Amino acid sequence: MSRPFLLGVLGGMGPLATVDFMHKLLRATPATHDQQQIPHVVWNVPQIADRQRALAGEGPSPLPQLLYGIQQLNRLGVSHIVIACNTAHHWYEALKQESDAPILHIADATLEAIEDKPKKVGLIATQGTLDAGWFQQRFAAIGTESLLPTQDEITRWFVPGCYAVKRGDLQQGGELLTLQARALRERGAEKLVLACTEVPVALAAISSPYLNEAIDPAEALAQQCATLWLSRRNDRIN
Amino acid sequence: MSRPFLLGVLGGMGPLATVDFMHKLLRATPATHDQQQIPHVVWNVPQIADRQRALAGEGPSPLPQLLYGIQQLNRLGVSHIVIACNTAHHWYEALKQESDAPILHIADATLEAIEDKPKKVGLIATQGTLDAGWFQQRFAAIGTESLLPTQDEITRWFVPGCYAVKRGDLQQGGELLTLQARALRERGAEKLVLACTEVPVALAAISSPYLNEAIDPAEALAQQCATLWLSRRNDRIN
Repeated sequence: MSRPFLLGVLGGMGPLATVDFMHKLLRATPATHDQQQIPHVVWNVPQIADRQRALAGEGPSPLPQLLYGIQQLNRLGVSHIVIACNTAHHWYEALKQESDAPILHIADATLEAIEDKPKKVGLIATQGTLDAGWFQQRFAAIGTESLLPTQDEITRWFVPGCYAVKRGDLQQGGELLTLQARALRERGAEKLVLACTEVPVALAAISSPYLNEAIDPAEALAQQCATLWLSRRNDRIN
Repeated sequence: MSRPFLLGVLGGMGPLATVDFMHKLLRATPATHDQQQIPHVVWNVPQIADRQRALAGEGPSPLPQLLYGIQQLNRLGVSHIVIACNTAHHWYEALKQESDAPILHIADATLEAIEDKPKKVGLIATQGTLDAGWFQQRFAAIGTESLLPTQDEITRWFVPGCYAVKRGDLQQGGELLTLQARALRERGAEKLVLACTEVPVALAAISSPYLNEAIDPAEALAQQCATLWLSRRNDRIN
């Protein structure tokens, strides 16, 4: 017997990117009134050890706080969980083992959403996400090559761009991340994969033209959630 | 001994207004990195009986679903609860009795946020909120007169404007609610009180000039939450 549909969102990484993900959930769901929208509960608690620093060996692991969030969502009887942060998928297997509810993987959702396979994509992501290789492996399996930011680009544009979003400076975040996007396009990427949830927030804030050529994993994940919900919309939540 | 700070948001009424409220929470909190932002958990489950219809005697009461949401937030050990919907405050006393965590009242937060007392305010709100009189009573206590929409305006502009937002038509919602705002200004309101969480969403979507002369109860409530959080930011969440 399946549980009534209730989506749990593990957020807080960052909190603004989580709000952006919720917007995407609502936009992905055709609805003429409130009651048709996707029922969800959001753990938007940003008191989590910094993921990028942990993976660089410069800070404590966020795993205890991630596990706590997953446990709290499970206590509410969620039927599915998503993690509104690409980098946090580093701990996906550990979280999955502790969760009664299945956890959807953002890279699986991204690949599912791709219609025409590009020859080359540019991955805009944290060093931790790049090192993990989830996106590269999945793209390779469909014959798509992944171009990665250089170490220099990450230091100059990607990292300060992300932290600008985290302190609310979307303008600066947008400008820095646009430079990162342009560099990947100039090296031959047909599409850009915005594989860090801060990135689409920043590019949208400055109406960056690179948004139009982008594959947005957060949007793909929202779309997957909406599809699941639409197939079960007649269930009752309580 | 007080609980660690964790804000519970009873949302879903509507789900987009709840996302807008979360934006306001983040904007109200000065933060240079994720970890300084307000920790919150959001019950954004819109499968709740329609509040306006219930209060008009045309549909079932939303109280069971509201109580369920309050119970679920309490199960997570929230320290405070807010309800991101003015009309749902009709059931405030019943919800308060069932909640371990204190529930902040949106009209109290609004009055606290007022700096210079206007002589006359225009209340843009559902019939249920207007009938309850929370805002009028509190404004009367500080010597401010409340101007209300007429029955005809509510039918022509307010109600269809709100339901346009709920079906995602922010443009139409913004236009209709701007007509409502203009009518109240023309009758002498110095400030407009946007006492329905759909209203600021719609006016912002069309960059309505009436936003600049408005008192936004959702923003006032977010500000109250941020002030509480700032006074306890050194506590740990888990």
